[in-house]
Amino acid sequence: MATSNSNHPLKDDLDIVIPTIRNLDFLEMWRPFFQPYHLIIVQDGDPSRSIKVPDGFDYELYNRNDINKILGPEASCISFKDSACRCFGYMVSKKKYIFTIDDDCFVAKDPTGKDINALAQHIKNLLNPSTPYFFNTLYDPFSDGADFVRGYPFSLREGIPTAVSHGLWLNIPDYDAPTQLVKPREKNTRYVDAVMTIPKGTLFPMCGMNLAFDRKLIGPAMYFGLMGDGQPIGRYDDMWAGWCVKEYKGIFWQEEIIPFFQATSLPKECTTVQSCYVELARMVKDKLGKIDPYFVKLGDAMVTWIEAWDELNPKESKKINGK
Amino acid sequence: MATSNSNHPLKDDLDIVIPTIRNLDFLEMWRPFFQPYHLIIVQDGDPSRSIKVPDGFDYELYNRNDINKILGPEASCISFKDSACRCFGYMVSKKKYIFTIDDDCFVAKDPTGKDINALAQHIKNLLNPSTPYFFNTLYDPFSDGADFVRGYPFSLREGIPTAVSHGLWLNIPDYDAPTQLVKPREKNTRYVDAVMTIPKGTLFPMCGMNLAFDRKLIGPAMYFGLMGDGQPIGRYDDMWAGWCVKEYKGIFWQEEIIPFFQATSLPKECTTVQSCYVELARMVKDKLGKIDPYFVKLGDAMVTWIEAWDELNPKESKKINGK
Repeated sequence: MATSNSNHPLKDDLDIVIPTIRNLDFLEMWRPFFQPYHLIIVQDGDPSRSIKVPDGFDYELYNRNDINKILGPEASCISFKDSACRCFGYMVSKKKYIFTIDDDCFVAKDPTGKDINALAQHIKNLLNPSTPYFFNTLYDPFSDGADFVRGYPFSLREGIPTAVSHGLWLNIPDYDAPTQLVKPREKNTRYVDAVMTIPKGTLFPMCGMNLAFDRKLIGPAMYFGLMGDGQPIGRYDDMWAGWCVKEYKGIFWQEEIIPFFQATSLPKECTTVQSCYVELARMVKDKLGKIDPYFVKLGDAMVTWIEAWDELNPKESKKINGK
Repeated sequence: MATSNSNHPLKDDLDIVIPTIRNLDFLEMWRPFFQPYHLIIVQDGDPSRSIKVPDGFDYELYNRNDINKILGPEASCISFKDSACRCFGYMVSKKKYIFTIDDDCFVAKDPTGKDINALAQHIKNLLNPSTPYFFNTLYDPFSDGADFVRGYPFSLREGIPTAVSHGLWLNIPDYDAPTQLVKPREKNTRYVDAVMTIPKGTLFPMCGMNLAFDRKLIGPAMYFGLMGDGQPIGRYDDMWAGWCVKEYKGIFWQEEIIPFFQATSLPKECTTVQSCYVELARMVKDKLGKIDPYFVKLGDAMVTWIEAWDELNPKESKKINGK
């Protein structure tokens, strides 16, 4: 039987970024959905190991030696031995959109038993506006058979461009270590067929396991540190950085980090993602450096990340500087 | 077969308020869920008409003559010939919780064909905290088999008391007149099994057709005018008043009303729902009176409503004044 390659939106405008340390057998399951797209595989850990990719996929693969060669000393901003190394893929991509997925994600089924094409839903989300300024009670007004309900302001119905599409998951519920210890057997089995915009000014715990975003709009802010926590909306004033937090420290730090982000606002002069991010790096060093010296290191890495981004994406950078 | 009356939470702490102009045959469908609870029926329109209530329900019924007798001149604040008259029921209730439902609401079925007990879900929502300060990506952390995901601040996991539980609906999607005209045949058929908190500071179009709230916490702010639009969280600084808007005017007014509410903040001296609401009434007259003289009338009605509320609820009022 021929694999259908037709009707794959954004086929030439989206890269799938996969961080991995193993053979990518999981791609077999995703073949009907992923095969038409280009993959960027970021191999973590020992670069001498060889990673097998199933036949028929179009991909480029980078191991640590490649990253070091391409970035030189700036490679220090790319995490090692953590799936956060995926953000190197964001940097080398030349496409408008990124979809990133963990190599232990399986295809979920809807209640009728049909395989869910998570990528297709992400693409739909990225191509439709977000509505962060007012909440629509019947969920996604842009899905089939839905619209804005009575009382929704007409002036806000156009929405704004979607920056991030955050996928969810079934089975393992992605708890922190203490919750996992308390509820070792809890599974998430409830499939919720709803897309919604997280309102402006609302923080949320971003998870990088199944995530898509508009790279041209917010790519430089999608730096993952070691653990990804981010912001849903293309508003740079309250954008989250990724946090290099091992759980045991992270669960204490997060109580101080979150108020920092809630209070953060960026000066008007910062009009590009890059300049906002560098300013955020300064504030991280200044305000969070007191909690732990790690944050000084992270602030430096954030600046290095932007420098490396601009080197690999000179056209974007020129546009910004020349504007 | 005996009707099971056991296991009905809040049986003595919740009134079901139903505005109507017809015989309440729709209650037959809801009998297994509603029969153990007390009903407050607010008869709208011609008070000489007699409304039939199916046998076996425990209820009190008020028509316009009753409302006029009980409130005297203050009855002017209760709408006539509009389902907004339901708010009289909020005022005469002596219970901690209110559930209100339109008399044309049917019992929906979940995807397995089982009847959905909307009241039970509202009660569960009211008895569980809300989490308006941070978004939980896997929806309601208090539902069975769910919790807060990794990265959710521990300091915010206790949540705050839930003020309003907003139910949704299937079939007719509750569009405004223009949308209805454009999509006359569109039906909402997607059942979404998810409970979520609308974040702090986010406005939404409240619908009174299937709504529960904590009367002790925010009752006096639940004044409906003629069309109910409200606020999901027990924060009075950005509480919505109900709006006496006929659609054709409302869809123009709402574009100016919403920014008014987004910009509204109440002085610290207002520490009760009543005092906040009276201050809001003053601002409505002052700021929105310029749009249309209707808002001056509405501001006066808001004050009358609070006066009438305090007269019918003297204990609450005394507690406030004596505090």
